[in-house]
Amino acid sequence: MERAPVDATPLVEPSARLTPRDEVERRLEGLGGTLAAQGLDAAVIVQNADLYYFSGTVQQSFLYVPVDGPPTLFAHKVVERARLESPLADIVPLAGVRDLPDLIVERYGALPARVGLELDVLPVNQFRRLESLFPGVTFADVGPDIVRQRAVKSGWEIERIRAAAALADEVYGLIPGLLEEGLTEAEFAGRVEAEARRLGHEGVIRMRGFNQEMFYGQLLTGASGAAATFLDTPLGGTGLSPAVAQGVSFKPIRRGDHVVFDFVPVREGYIADFTRIFVLGTLPDELACAYEAALRIQDVVKAVARPGVTCAAVWSAALAAAEAAGLAANFMGHGEGRVRFVGHGVGLELDELPVLTASDTALQEGMVFALEPKFVLPGLGAIGVENTFYVTADGIAALTTAPEHVVELDP
Amino acid sequence: MERAPVDATPLVEPSARLTPRDEVERRLEGLGGTLAAQGLDAAVIVQNADLYYFSGTVQQSFLYVPVDGPPTLFAHKVVERARLESPLADIVPLAGVRDLPDLIVERYGALPARVGLELDVLPVNQFRRLESLFPGVTFADVGPDIVRQRAVKSGWEIERIRAAAALADEVYGLIPGLLEEGLTEAEFAGRVEAEARRLGHEGVIRMRGFNQEMFYGQLLTGASGAAATFLDTPLGGTGLSPAVAQGVSFKPIRRGDHVVFDFVPVREGYIADFTRIFVLGTLPDELACAYEAALRIQDVVKAVARPGVTCAAVWSAALAAAEAAGLAANFMGHGEGRVRFVGHGVGLELDELPVLTASDTALQEGMVFALEPKFVLPGLGAIGVENTFYVTADGIAALTTAPEHVVELDP
Repeated sequence: MERAPVDATPLVEPSARLTPRDEVERRLEGLGGTLAAQGLDAAVIVQNADLYYFSGTVQQSFLYVPVDGPPTLFAHKVVERARLESPLADIVPLAGVRDLPDLIVERYGALPARVGLELDVLPVNQFRRLESLFPGVTFADVGPDIVRQRAVKSGWEIERIRAAAALADEVYGLIPGLLEEGLTEAEFAGRVEAEARRLGHEGVIRMRGFNQEMFYGQLLTGASGAAATFLDTPLGGTGLSPAVAQGVSFKPIRRGDHVVFDFVPVREGYIADFTRIFVLGTLPDELACAYEAALRIQDVVKAVARPGVTCAAVWSAALAAAEAAGLAANFMGHGEGRVRFVGHGVGLELDELPVLTASDTALQEGMVFALEPKFVLPGLGAIGVENTFYVTADGIAALTTAPEHVVELDP
Repeated sequence: MERAPVDATPLVEPSARLTPRDEVERRLEGLGGTLAAQGLDAAVIVQNADLYYFSGTVQQSFLYVPVDGPPTLFAHKVVERARLESPLADIVPLAGVRDLPDLIVERYGALPARVGLELDVLPVNQFRRLESLFPGVTFADVGPDIVRQRAVKSGWEIERIRAAAALADEVYGLIPGLLEEGLTEAEFAGRVEAEARRLGHEGVIRMRGFNQEMFYGQLLTGASGAAATFLDTPLGGTGLSPAVAQGVSFKPIRRGDHVVFDFVPVREGYIADFTRIFVLGTLPDELACAYEAALRIQDVVKAVARPGVTCAAVWSAALAAAEAAGLAANFMGHGEGRVRFVGHGVGLELDELPVLTASDTALQEGMVFALEPKFVLPGLGAIGVENTFYVTADGIAALTTAPEHVVELDP
């Protein structure tokens, strides 16, 4: 916090950790490598998560990163805040995007010939606006490179994700005091979310995928956990209406219901992912067996995953363990709701790399992923476990640490 | 609810209102008018809010709407759910987007020559995928037409927004029992949000603008309400970290602090917007005067706004009233944080048309907007009022109805 003066109207939360200068410098070096490899003169970064990653601040802004030389953050709103939050030296006011070409020429002497953009997330019309403002400039896609770069976390980032993971562990510990028979799912979710907020949950869960939406995770109870949704997730839930057709419903939680506490904690921009099971009574044998199978799959993955192992190898090992348990048809969803992965990267977005699916991407030290072996049993609901792990030099280590047994309340 | 059977695993929340068939038919007719006017053969709708508007369901899907003839929803996930939720007759499974051209030919006899897409929201890479799958097809932008169409609500939609608005009124009534000196802003927000969830707040707040993010609104207290953010909003807040630099902070609420309860209720997909002021004690004179000015601006707009009046006329009238109060420099933000509008459309998204700014768009009967005259006084915080109105045949009528006086708690 060396950069933030605090007065009656603090622009920066005093307890927040600002992104360190060396962290941002290393990230910009990585982006420079992408530009050099693609033969690009510069990148213009615009998306919130990427802006935060490369500049330490999220403003209405364009981060201009030349392949050689210092970057400039051109900020429309709020320059003052950007200067407090970001370690970047050059933060320049921008009245509107139309001024961007002139300001680049002013600072760098000329326009770039080839520019990288995040074409995986940039809407067509905004891309066309940039094309028209930079006639003669060629644009290339650096979105997938940025996603790959961001998949490998620094030690500082792993500690940020550990802090997010701790939020999940903390809220987990409060659930026995919050869960009561007769509450609706929505009411119970509200109690849980209030605790999460108090403890610093930031609310907004960033996802990179178009149309992907998430609100705290998927707190599902009893059979309603078997309802599949449009999301690229194994679980779903009924939701409160067809408009947001996932997550909690108005169903009252009854004696005998189990709770799938699938919770996405977010602290200071960083995300983890976590699932534990509670039950108001005792878990039916079929669900209990499936839960044991999920724990075995987690053990199998823990034994297999290390740097150099492909995602496909991890996925195959998990799938084989699900087959051995006789639950292949229920693994990671059922019927239409099934997804073909057992885990996904987390970081500044919930849907990062690596995806633990049939891909030849190899795990690397510093990658962070949520491993979520889960089963959907029609008529009975969903069950499974989820922890956030980081890849170490010779294996994986958990960032979420809560006990993994099914918590029986009033058995 | 004529279409949804309910069993142990309901796919549709039983209390939810499904979008009526005639509602969807009228909307599709409107889209047909856009296609005819632009000389297009069909539209392919992909974005969640638009999918919900035109089909009544949000799935991983492509809604194909020919200029003549019946539409088809090609759904990858979840077909079963789409069939329960949507009144559309033709809902067809789609294994992947690569099958879309063949399925269109199979159902319609030929590929369209000119197709409308939502280019205001569709990411470049997904657009290019469609271009490559439909060689020779020309694509045009129907996003802005859809946005204009959606700005004018049906009676059914106005009732849905009234139900959302009622949620704001209900939560407003609970605040005196929730607000306590010594709570952090985050803790207080959690209490408020828990009640909102219990009463049916859906959580996800859809926004169309790229990079726009919102979590329940902006619950700000004391001087921290003066902190501006990157968002296109008059208010901001410090936020919990630079990663999500808006909304509540960890600042404790102190005696004498006022609370700006800027709250975005969402029920069954529909959004309203609402702001009221509470104070732990008595409001300082400067803030009290500014609040009176905000109420006068609201009165001025109520007197001016009716079908045929331009947004510019409304904006000018509001601005003149702010000038008359001697608060022009603080109106709708201060310094860099200032925005140039006094209201915005609401519906399935928070950032709809009309925008009450210097635009020649005329108000039409059925439009719904949040009117939010607000002031930011550096060192003192933010203040203002916000109600959601719909445009009637000869004026505007409020959907949010809570009393508008500043609520003094323990004065």
